[in-house]
Amino acid sequence: MVNYEAQLDATFTALSHQARRCILARLGQGEATVGELAKPLEMSLPAVTKHLKVLEKARLISRSKDAQWRPCRLEEAPLNAASGWIEAQRLLWESRLDRLETYLNRLEEEGSHDK
Amino acid sequence: MVNYEAQLDATFTALSHQARRCILARLGQGEATVGELAKPLEMSLPAVTKHLKVLEKARLISRSKDAQWRPCRLEEAPLNAASGWIEAQRLLWESRLDRLETYLNRLEEEGSHDK
Repeated sequence: MVNYEAQLDATFTALSHQARRCILARLGQGEATVGELAKPLEMSLPAVTKHLKVLEKARLISRSKDAQWRPCRLEEAPLNAASGWIEAQRLLWESRLDRLETYLNRLEEEGSHDK
Repeated sequence: MVNYEAQLDATFTALSHQARRCILARLGQGEATVGELAKPLEMSLPAVTKHLKVLEKARLISRSKDAQWRPCRLEEAPLNAASGWIEAQRLLWESRLDRLETYLNRLEEEGSHDK
């Protein structure tokens, strides 16, 4: 459970910067090198490398150890866990609203019987 | 567009701490005061207030100005935008995998015709 929460901390931290979200969106189209990732961001290679380290630490990307250019690739699992957490909140919230609606309808019905 | 990205930055930052996720999960069940939110977290009121300020700044919660105890309530829209961003990435990623599969199937089919 601690690991699950620590992973969510790391995933949401990684997602909290526009440049890192751009990198993830680009990697969703396929592997890319640091140079390819830097181009549309108009950033220096060291700046991109810094963001890649955050993404790698959060396990949102992995980097090939063999290839000379060490291309980056997206890892889907932590993103799915993060979206799963938000989705679970939504389901709880909606079921609460449904219960509230049922309760209000019942009150209204009882009120009309009393008249 | 800048506002959209800045809102995503703030939402994901707010979600990146377990205590703030606990607060949001609790508020999904209904409004609560700072005292009620502090109890299960075993945190001091000032510590909880600090987290509430992050959540309020990110517009994930709002606080009643009139009531004496200023209860907090969940605001759904930024959470939906954050989950929408992740979902959009997943759709792009999956459509890429589908295209790749179609391409590989075609290659295989052409290969079997050549034999």
